[in-house]
Amino acid sequence: MNKIKVSYAPSVRRLPSYLLIAKQALESADEYLSGTFIATELGLEPIQVRKDLSITGISGKPKRGYPVKPLVEAIEAYLNWDRRVDAVVVGAGHLGSALMGFPGFRQHGLHIVAAFDADAKKAGGSIYDMPVYAMADIPARLPTLGVLTAVLTVPSSSAQEVADVLIANGIKALWNFTNVKLKVPEDVVVQNEDLSSGYAMLSIKCRMRRERLS
Amino acid sequence: MNKIKVSYAPSVRRLPSYLLIAKQALESADEYLSGTFIATELGLEPIQVRKDLSITGISGKPKRGYPVKPLVEAIEAYLNWDRRVDAVVVGAGHLGSALMGFPGFRQHGLHIVAAFDADAKKAGGSIYDMPVYAMADIPARLPTLGVLTAVLTVPSSSAQEVADVLIANGIKALWNFTNVKLKVPEDVVVQNEDLSSGYAMLSIKCRMRRERLS
Repeated sequence: MNKIKVSYAPSVRRLPSYLLIAKQALESADEYLSGTFIATELGLEPIQVRKDLSITGISGKPKRGYPVKPLVEAIEAYLNWDRRVDAVVVGAGHLGSALMGFPGFRQHGLHIVAAFDADAKKAGGSIYDMPVYAMADIPARLPTLGVLTAVLTVPSSSAQEVADVLIANGIKALWNFTNVKLKVPEDVVVQNEDLSSGYAMLSIKCRMRRERLS
Repeated sequence: MNKIKVSYAPSVRRLPSYLLIAKQALESADEYLSGTFIATELGLEPIQVRKDLSITGISGKPKRGYPVKPLVEAIEAYLNWDRRVDAVVVGAGHLGSALMGFPGFRQHGLHIVAAFDADAKKAGGSIYDMPVYAMADIPARLPTLGVLTAVLTVPSSSAQEVADVLIANGIKALWNFTNVKLKVPEDVVVQNEDLSSGYAMLSIKCRMRRERLS
């Protein structure tokens, strides 16, 4: 199941940027938003924007662009962001805590409802008003929370072991911030989030900048 | 300069995963690493792996694969990760602190040497043994640190203002973790890191999972 080919992955990754611009247009009470405007804002080609947005099923009107409210709704429906998804953060260190406080997620329907941490001193406390439980309490607590999604921010050394416990207790979707390639059953999905990928992009852009200046 | 088209961006984003596998092979004293093995590990097509790696200039040998040490060196040289790059974190909240402690960055040559934060109580302290300075001290401190790269983890509401101050004081590369599309001069590069993009991918994978099961 992890090996589903999402051939339109780069398009999916750009949808949140389009959604942000569309929501700003909605707040400004604009009726239409042109693909060219979106393209200029994001430094993309207009044809790329049209191609990306077509996967959501929306189509623009010649010379006017996309109707704003249907555009917002089409992107949110396509991503399933018009419905609430509850999740737990597993590993409540700096990164896990940052994700619990990230304001964008709730706007996208993602509600982090609790955290688990190996540090017994954190258990019983709370982060951004959400309870923190002991890692050992996953089997007892997780099924009562009714969540299918976990954000994995534990140290890489314990990633597979913790993932196994989460899956044994009902987790079907893992957002994996460790650099471990997790082994999971066929019916569990994993999205790997590798911060090094972003740094690779920054490094290449810096290199192109130097080559252009020299 | 922001609008340089990195048409091979998806390939660049995958290079850190290849590098991780190549370094593991190096530790195991393997002499060759096959593209097929890398593809299987990462759930990619072998032809995709060969195409991605070709941008670094490395080529494999028929039936043996890529020589491991030259493979590591080619990826690191291509990404400029064989040289040290110093950077500052600007906004030392949970996310900024997490990035200061991220073990992967030093392996890639990225050394975060200091942080700036708007919270006067944090100034004068340290995070992971790196000094935290007051945001107001950027003009006085930044030029003495000799860094060209800043990791921007301030609240979105102050992102542009802080970016302007950083650029006025010599920053040429911004790794932007806010959702603000920064306006910067031609000679400054920006890499936008949008956590929502990863969540969009997870959402689509969950949707495909449900559709497959229903």
